[in-house]
Amino acid sequence: MNFTIDREVLLENLNVISRGLPSKSPMPILTGIKLDVTNTDLYMTSSNTDISVETFVSDASLKVIKPGKTVVPGRFFIDIVRKINSKQINLCLIDDKILEIKADRGEYKLHIMDPLDYPNIDFVSLENPLSLPAEQVKNLIKQTSFATATSEKKPILTGVHLTLDGTKLTATATDSFRLSQSILEIENYRPFSITIPNKSLDELAKAIDNFNEAITLYFSSNKLLVKFKNVLFQTRLLDGNYPDTSRLIPTSFPIILKFNKDELLEAIERVSLLSPREKMSSNELSYSIIKLSVSKEQNIIISTTNASIGDALEELIPIDTQMNKPITIGFSSRYLIEALRSFESTEIALNCSEGIRPFVVTGEKDPNLTQLILPVRMD
Amino acid sequence: MNFTIDREVLLENLNVISRGLPSKSPMPILTGIKLDVTNTDLYMTSSNTDISVETFVSDASLKVIKPGKTVVPGRFFIDIVRKINSKQINLCLIDDKILEIKADRGEYKLHIMDPLDYPNIDFVSLENPLSLPAEQVKNLIKQTSFATATSEKKPILTGVHLTLDGTKLTATATDSFRLSQSILEIENYRPFSITIPNKSLDELAKAIDNFNEAITLYFSSNKLLVKFKNVLFQTRLLDGNYPDTSRLIPTSFPIILKFNKDELLEAIERVSLLSPREKMSSNELSYSIIKLSVSKEQNIIISTTNASIGDALEELIPIDTQMNKPITIGFSSRYLIEALRSFESTEIALNCSEGIRPFVVTGEKDPNLTQLILPVRMD
Repeated sequence: MNFTIDREVLLENLNVISRGLPSKSPMPILTGIKLDVTNTDLYMTSSNTDISVETFVSDASLKVIKPGKTVVPGRFFIDIVRKINSKQINLCLIDDKILEIKADRGEYKLHIMDPLDYPNIDFVSLENPLSLPAEQVKNLIKQTSFATATSEKKPILTGVHLTLDGTKLTATATDSFRLSQSILEIENYRPFSITIPNKSLDELAKAIDNFNEAITLYFSSNKLLVKFKNVLFQTRLLDGNYPDTSRLIPTSFPIILKFNKDELLEAIERVSLLSPREKMSSNELSYSIIKLSVSKEQNIIISTTNASIGDALEELIPIDTQMNKPITIGFSSRYLIEALRSFESTEIALNCSEGIRPFVVTGEKDPNLTQLILPVRMD
Repeated sequence: MNFTIDREVLLENLNVISRGLPSKSPMPILTGIKLDVTNTDLYMTSSNTDISVETFVSDASLKVIKPGKTVVPGRFFIDIVRKINSKQINLCLIDDKILEIKADRGEYKLHIMDPLDYPNIDFVSLENPLSLPAEQVKNLIKQTSFATATSEKKPILTGVHLTLDGTKLTATATDSFRLSQSILEIENYRPFSITIPNKSLDELAKAIDNFNEAITLYFSSNKLLVKFKNVLFQTRLLDGNYPDTSRLIPTSFPIILKFNKDELLEAIERVSLLSPREKMSSNELSYSIIKLSVSKEQNIIISTTNASIGDALEELIPIDTQMNKPITIGFSSRYLIEALRSFESTEIALNCSEGIRPFVVTGEKDPNLTQLILPVRMD
């Protein structure tokens, strides 16, 4: 193997490859990046078993002197290419033992691994594509992935559930205490119902961060392959049945409070400075519980009481209220803060029922987005 | 106590006060900020026993309704004032138990502590000031403090040593493996020799970050008081004799290599990506050791060998060389990187002796700055 390529082209591809590269692995070979250069093209592959990434480079700057394959220590290779200043980089395999990286007056020699030891990555075949604008996919991830469970107690909840019914693509995430749902109208495609690991969606969002055209999706029974530019990004899917959440979202609300989103956000952030930290379940993060009360006179108060520090109280003036009787609900400030941040709208509504029933956040400019939060009992 | 003040004025002063505020303390009262408002002025005090800070506010926006004293939970108070959006803030003591903070439609009540429990801070008397431009003090700190010891084995080395001899103010820091020395020509003042804890200098640098006029220094046997704007910043001094470092810095060098600083820095950063991590002493951080060789032909090579990963090598073209014979020196890349970053100069010189003798970094535009590094044996 011996070839020269523009550093910028190589680095741009390595940045995508890094999304699939584990820093540690029970299979040491996977901490390497597989390079495979033919007479005309360079293929690079990374895999952490959950995610596999392949990029295909046939850039004009690629000059192949001798084709070949190798596996190079991934993090070191990326760090070196990142730190190099030169326009061009030459990569040359020496005695099938060392990859020599030459750039300007720098010379780096990395011990390589045997490409025959690299597992064969079985990418889903490129048939029956579903095409989606990258922008919408990024939005779907941003609006739902934060609500997935972090605990592994119910593994299926650590993923985002994606279903297609006709032209209605629904993304759902829940950690049992809150639920995010975003619906996209798309072209007609065969129905599916899959659950994608949240970690894979995070990496996918980073990989397509600067990409704004259409991406194509390919499905198999246990894998999803996303293709964009010269990249194949594949993730395994989560096994098991995703719970039926269709009946969790209430449809009628006796109380609707409309706010300016930023005013509500800031008031909650200030009040939660003083809220006591409580655990909602044994191995989750701690949460600050705050209280929202609407009086008969329709005064809206967000407050918290912290026995050891003191009290906080913010009065809010809503844009509009519909209500039949006073209510008080308690909830995790973090849940409402994260829900509010997922909206583009400047005007949002809290849609509440009485008692310990979930309330729903909606936004006038986000008709397809629903954020549901389960209140906690305030005694 | 009851007064109103512009939020921005209060926050600006609290940002300075926060430099002396411990997050935890064996004396819980010290996690509070002491507020003392007279008919015309507001005093605020914080102390972590090493550092004490007092600010004196007599801003036009200060409207005192009732004078008084209290001690308020420091971090919560600062966080609330930081998050508040309103132009004005009202602070009112209720029943000598609660400080009520009112801003727009927000109301925060903090349990206060007894101001009689707050220790009396004994500030050095404001006599015999030494005046120095803030810019020069910041520079002095930036050029030396990174070289102090982090280990407490020799406590005196965790500080920066400051001596005045006539008009020559010398700042010295060393962790036994390297030494930084910066010299300032100042107005005549009585001689002194003190060692200031590095942590205090870090906080001082942050406190005066936006201040560019003269600051005044006041000395006592075990304390240093720095006055700037409306702020008193006091630190304890380190006990004990600072080692005599005057004869450590060699004065003649058979080998002088001049480089473009950025080229040298980048080459070292790249090579150190592959350098093995070694410990130079039992409880210090780990260091990457790299090698610099000058051949008979005056080729300069920076390199490292890492048995498990590979080798790195950068050739450098010096601006100028004076040498009598080839040398090879090994050293911690971190030490040289930190030393180089302390220079304003674009052209720097490595001044070397033969064998395992310290080498000295100097810069053409920093005549008063010396960075000395002890090489390690390369076998």
